[in-house]
Amino acid sequence: MKKKIGVIWGDGSSPEIVREAIAVLDTIANKYGHEFEYTKILMGGEAIDVMGEPLPQSQLDLCRAQDSVLLGAIGGPKWEGLPGEKRPEKGLLALRAGMGLYANNRPAKIWPQLADASPLKKEIVDQGIDFLIVRELIGGAYFGEHKQFEQNGELCAIDTMPYSEHEIERIGRIGFETARKRRKKLCMVDKHNVLETSRLWVKVFDRLKEDYPDVEYSTMFVDNCAMQICKNPAQFDVIVTENLFGDILSDEASEITGSIGMIPSSSLGKTTNGLYEPIHGSAPDIAGKNIVNPIACILSAAMMLRYSFDMAREADDIEKAVGAVLDQGLRTADMMSEGMIPVGTKEMGAAIRANI
Amino acid sequence: MKKKIGVIWGDGSSPEIVREAIAVLDTIANKYGHEFEYTKILMGGEAIDVMGEPLPQSQLDLCRAQDSVLLGAIGGPKWEGLPGEKRPEKGLLALRAGMGLYANNRPAKIWPQLADASPLKKEIVDQGIDFLIVRELIGGAYFGEHKQFEQNGELCAIDTMPYSEHEIERIGRIGFETARKRRKKLCMVDKHNVLETSRLWVKVFDRLKEDYPDVEYSTMFVDNCAMQICKNPAQFDVIVTENLFGDILSDEASEITGSIGMIPSSSLGKTTNGLYEPIHGSAPDIAGKNIVNPIACILSAAMMLRYSFDMAREADDIEKAVGAVLDQGLRTADMMSEGMIPVGTKEMGAAIRANI
Ligand SMILES: CC(C)[C@H](C(=O)O)[C@@H](O)C(=O)O
Ligand SMILES: CC(C)[C@H](C(=O)O)[C@@H](O)C(=O)O
Repeated sequence: MKKKIGVIWGDGSSPEIVREAIAVLDTIANKYGHEFEYTKILMGGEAIDVMGEPLPQSQLDLCRAQDSVLLGAIGGPKWEGLPGEKRPEKGLLALRAGMGLYANNRPAKIWPQLADASPLKKEIVDQGIDFLIVRELIGGAYFGEHKQFEQNGELCAIDTMPYSEHEIERIGRIGFETARKRRKKLCMVDKHNVLETSRLWVKVFDRLKEDYPDVEYSTMFVDNCAMQICKNPAQFDVIVTENLFGDILSDEASEITGSIGMIPSSSLGKTTNGLYEPIHGSAPDIAGKNIVNPIACILSAAMMLRYSFDMAREADDIEKAVGAVLDQGLRTADMMSEGMIPVGTKEMGAAIRANI
Repeated sequence: MKKKIGVIWGDGSSPEIVREAIAVLDTIANKYGHEFEYTKILMGGEAIDVMGEPLPQSQLDLCRAQDSVLLGAIGGPKWEGLPGEKRPEKGLLALRAGMGLYANNRPAKIWPQLADASPLKKEIVDQGIDFLIVRELIGGAYFGEHKQFEQNGELCAIDTMPYSEHEIERIGRIGFETARKRRKKLCMVDKHNVLETSRLWVKVFDRLKEDYPDVEYSTMFVDNCAMQICKNPAQFDVIVTENLFGDILSDEASEITGSIGMIPSSSLGKTTNGLYEPIHGSAPDIAGKNIVNPIACILSAAMMLRYSFDMAREADDIEKAVGAVLDQGLRTADMMSEGMIPVGTKEMGAAIRANI
């Protein structure tokens, strides 16, 4: 098969992981006779430096014209001083919105080889951590009106958090469908004792759940969920939630797996042209040192094959190769532990390719 | 000294813990020759049942007329079906706003006797968990405009999250002052890469920090903070944050101490008339069984003595007595572990009094 892949190389240490992910994709292309055509796309800090804004229209158009888009990570101290509208992150938000990517899929899964790296106790880890956060990605406080104004001689600011029925329904269906393909448990996380948007989420989900009688549906308050993720993560299968809560909870969830350098994510909308990126940031402090862990980016490429290109075997190959190098004891610095074999970014990438 | 204490007995198993806290206050009154005059105040589910609304004006007025207010916890399944405005929680929010309690103080501290109960690994716990979340309590999304309306043939909802300079400044000063009395580190948690209100928080704090050069000031994104609380809680001394983030992070923080049944909180405003309550909920499922842990409520009473009545010795007495009963091995069901002595709510209260 022939596929057009947009590649956003990103900032900081990101190009180092994207390079390895592309090399892995090439290995897959060779093995299966696929043709992947890569188009470099600028977004984030690099776009600011080269083109003066975090997501120029031309680059968004390029993304839309691909079969899917692979991203490393963006941002860094270099652009910290810029006003809100001009920051690298703004490019990412504009890209998510511009591509209509409303469903962000963030798995929290323990790799048995790395179970020791979890900050949680062994008793808790041993019960199993394997859940997935489906985060609504282009609504809520991220895309409501934001303003600053003067009132009674002082500055005031307001953010608004809007949601409409169809926005909730489409992410809700993704939540239920995803649960159906897994252990059939869906937990909708909200704050309906305080927020009106949450009450609308409850209403829409109460309707949707009738269509999925085979899925065990529950709701949980976001404050309680932040507790439960530490206390008893084994209780969760699929969590579905609004944008801001999803941001907070998915970071917590990735941390308890102990291997944030290993966690990929997908963002999808109505079409199969999605955005695939690691959960972790651009780690500018370690850029150029060949020490950043490329696995989250490589697994993001695997997710792209699976969900955008329907290449399940190919994705399996990559995921198995990652498992194999972990079994062989290879570790980048972030996951190094006693008795393991330390390797750099390039060596890790090469080892994974060798196992495909 | 003579003090007027408002007592909100609360719902579910709450009256059982409030009873023990009052008994402890009486023991202190006897020992030191104080006179505490208790006035029963209705708020939450009980107020709905008896007076038809979660916080009748007369009850708010009563709270304002006290020297301080002690609360157990409110809410329960009985009132779950009610609309937003009529729920027990609405009473609590109206009470916080009505008394002007903008600063909510939530300690996250490991009791060495209970360190095993933390869900975190021993290596992490051993580095020490002793921080405090100062949560802004009467602004932000909790008190912005909430509405539901129809647009293009579908329902929409909006919550607004407003903050003004003076609201941020007054909680900011509490944050810095609190840090000054502790290990002199203040971390302001926000989402300034997305929210305008967060950018106003940054602006105000950048000004405030000049007045507190002895305090080490930093900022952290809320998603990162949710990770760091699990990963490396020892890094924190005082965290200051807006209402909704504070709600989520303080629940996570209390969970990692492993003893949510032990955590008190204070809410204060311009005066010393504050509201003191456990972090935990009303646990209706175990009501009437004499098994709920009364310690968080007893420690809330101790906080009241310390912060509202300036009775440091008296508060010390209570806190030491709690430490003593833990040393003796007494445990309520929620904190029971091998080799310890199981006791009920009343027995725990009595043991603490016997140690004063
Ligand atoms: C960079 C930032 C705007 C972004 C977000 O909050 O969505 C990031 O934290 C994420 O989770 O992808
Ligand atoms: C009951 C609820 C409205 C409340 C809040 O969200 O503030 C509670 O979770 C708390 O933290 O005190």
